[in-house]
Amino acid sequence: MTITTYENPLTSPLNPLDPPARLLCGPGPTNPDPRVVEAMHRPMLGHLDPDMHEILLEVVELLRQTWRAGDDALVLPLSSTGTSAMEAGIVNLLAPGETLIVAECGFFGRRIAEIARRHGIVVVDVMADWGQAVPNDRLLAALDEHPEASMVAVVHAETSTGVEHPLAQLSAALRHSDVLLMADCVTSLGGMELDFDRMGIDYAYSCTQKCLGAPPGMAPVALSARAQRRMAQRTHPVPFSLDFELLRRYWVERPAVYHHTAPILHIYALHEALRQVHLEGLERRWRRHHHAGSYLQQGLRAFGLELLADPWRQMAPLTAVRVPDGVDRAQVQKRLLREFGIEVGGGLGPDAPNIWRLGLMGPNANDRTAETLLEAFETVLEPSAELIAAV
Amino acid sequence: MTITTYENPLTSPLNPLDPPARLLCGPGPTNPDPRVVEAMHRPMLGHLDPDMHEILLEVVELLRQTWRAGDDALVLPLSSTGTSAMEAGIVNLLAPGETLIVAECGFFGRRIAEIARRHGIVVVDVMADWGQAVPNDRLLAALDEHPEASMVAVVHAETSTGVEHPLAQLSAALRHSDVLLMADCVTSLGGMELDFDRMGIDYAYSCTQKCLGAPPGMAPVALSARAQRRMAQRTHPVPFSLDFELLRRYWVERPAVYHHTAPILHIYALHEALRQVHLEGLERRWRRHHHAGSYLQQGLRAFGLELLADPWRQMAPLTAVRVPDGVDRAQVQKRLLREFGIEVGGGLGPDAPNIWRLGLMGPNANDRTAETLLEAFETVLEPSAELIAAV
Repeated sequence: MTITTYENPLTSPLNPLDPPARLLCGPGPTNPDPRVVEAMHRPMLGHLDPDMHEILLEVVELLRQTWRAGDDALVLPLSSTGTSAMEAGIVNLLAPGETLIVAECGFFGRRIAEIARRHGIVVVDVMADWGQAVPNDRLLAALDEHPEASMVAVVHAETSTGVEHPLAQLSAALRHSDVLLMADCVTSLGGMELDFDRMGIDYAYSCTQKCLGAPPGMAPVALSARAQRRMAQRTHPVPFSLDFELLRRYWVERPAVYHHTAPILHIYALHEALRQVHLEGLERRWRRHHHAGSYLQQGLRAFGLELLADPWRQMAPLTAVRVPDGVDRAQVQKRLLREFGIEVGGGLGPDAPNIWRLGLMGPNANDRTAETLLEAFETVLEPSAELIAAV
Repeated sequence: MTITTYENPLTSPLNPLDPPARLLCGPGPTNPDPRVVEAMHRPMLGHLDPDMHEILLEVVELLRQTWRAGDDALVLPLSSTGTSAMEAGIVNLLAPGETLIVAECGFFGRRIAEIARRHGIVVVDVMADWGQAVPNDRLLAALDEHPEASMVAVVHAETSTGVEHPLAQLSAALRHSDVLLMADCVTSLGGMELDFDRMGIDYAYSCTQKCLGAPPGMAPVALSARAQRRMAQRTHPVPFSLDFELLRRYWVERPAVYHHTAPILHIYALHEALRQVHLEGLERRWRRHHHAGSYLQQGLRAFGLELLADPWRQMAPLTAVRVPDGVDRAQVQKRLLREFGIEVGGGLGPDAPNIWRLGLMGPNANDRTAETLLEAFETVLEPSAELIAAV
């Protein structure tokens, strides 16, 4: 046996990676907090080490505070990214044939519906245009039409449009029913006002690489007491790797029961990221994100650009900007990347409007970064100023 | 709103983590190669950055060589751990109602059967005692009895017992049938002779935290051309986060299509780990693991300890040692951990025999580490020498 000589048409993989520095101002990941990356350098414990099991409990407690979830909530991070946490909620809480009402006004609402259909769930789509929120009264009307529905799913912070869904009103209406409320909090956890208990959420999921300021790789979730009761009554089998009951036995129950080999260094990173949230103070962190996002949005509007989101629903961490007619979206992104080392996003998926997506999350949620982003953006757009003025 | 004051009965989570140094000589994770951890400190790119997409292709090419898989194989790593890759193979390649023959002689063979049953697969269990391999002729006899079977699953390296399954003979018998061969290579990739193409494997999966010497967090997989054809004919829906066709569009197809936010820093780590495999040479790395494992096994036998595995099937990276009567298994592990900073494993699951599991993987596969482990083990066992002599 011999090893085939490697020939890569692009670059030689025998060189160590040497990725260029980037200011990550797209829809996430954001640049991780340096203290978080530093934590990944600490000595690695095994996943069944008793000292590791104490760390798991600390992460759960810090996460519980970040969700603002009470002691009766099941809180843990999945060892995978946000998409799998979206899927985990669906498969753990709904059986095939059950009905799910989904608010869809962007890429991630549609993804919830798509994943649910894959698992045999009957989906009631309640749609709104990209840039709008689905009105809660339309969701409640859908519920009146489908009294058999078991759950309503909304995207708290729609990363594809920058729209925040007003959760509190919806949950007030659902609280005295048997209908569970699932909320995609991928872009809201740690960067927008979010209170799992008070907002009456039954299942929330997020990621680590946005407002928490850690690298991508894990997905924090929270399940209410009634979501756990629903799960306990379940008779249909659930994919093993997404089974919250098995995950609970590793993360929370002691002695811990092996389920999978947890990503130890990423758990250190998440611990440090949550510790930073705690040290900063959750509300102060929300305000910091709000301030940076508002500053950016004012600057963009002042330059004559139009934002996609309904102004009443615009979130702070993510801003979608309409590409003016005659401006080449991809070319602007390419120049920002190659000339300024700045990443911004485009629209997500084939149905997206023609937009850029600008994010200020985690360590990048500050006025200085907003200013840097605005200056680069305006420099690149300067030749198109007449086109923009015509908007 | 106020943040609840944190009270942890164990330690204060407001301190940074300060995990003790460990020599990880259990069933994995192993201590990561310092060059691999260093790679995680490089500037983070976004998951949709064109420079990142080149890195993905490099990782795929390096991984292809490590699997020894040809250009017609689909090779990529999942953004989750080995357990999810086990599940991914089952759900992508088998429809509910199809039949799977599973070789079960330890924890992970049984787990394959359990996961398959969760997905509505008809499982034919072919069992052997822990420490034995399931003879290939019994698997082929099961196939004669169940000509409707679509796939045979074996554990190439059973991490719960230290037993290697002789793959080559089995695949020779299956090669001219329509029956696929799935192999759990979690403990073999990079540390034991493994040739995806020549061994005729259709679906193989592994992890990063054992013989590859990276931290846990990703799961390399390989699918043969015929496994991909089987997948293309599939009409049943597959869990979204495990769908190989969607993962292919992100990892291999260009322009890349978004599926999930990949764990960027872990991809850097995997790139560096595979680069180290390439620089060392795959066969030399297998020999290094073989030498270290043999050295350890000789030392254990010389001390009078009995190994669990059939000597003809003993793998090098993982050695299961029977606990002598009268010796307290857990106490020995605890002393190794607390007095020597060495982690070794116990038996896995309620049906495990009374064993320790000793691993020498990745950077720890060398005589010096074997010597350190043997010395500590013998020091702790010294008071029980009479009991051991009686074995």
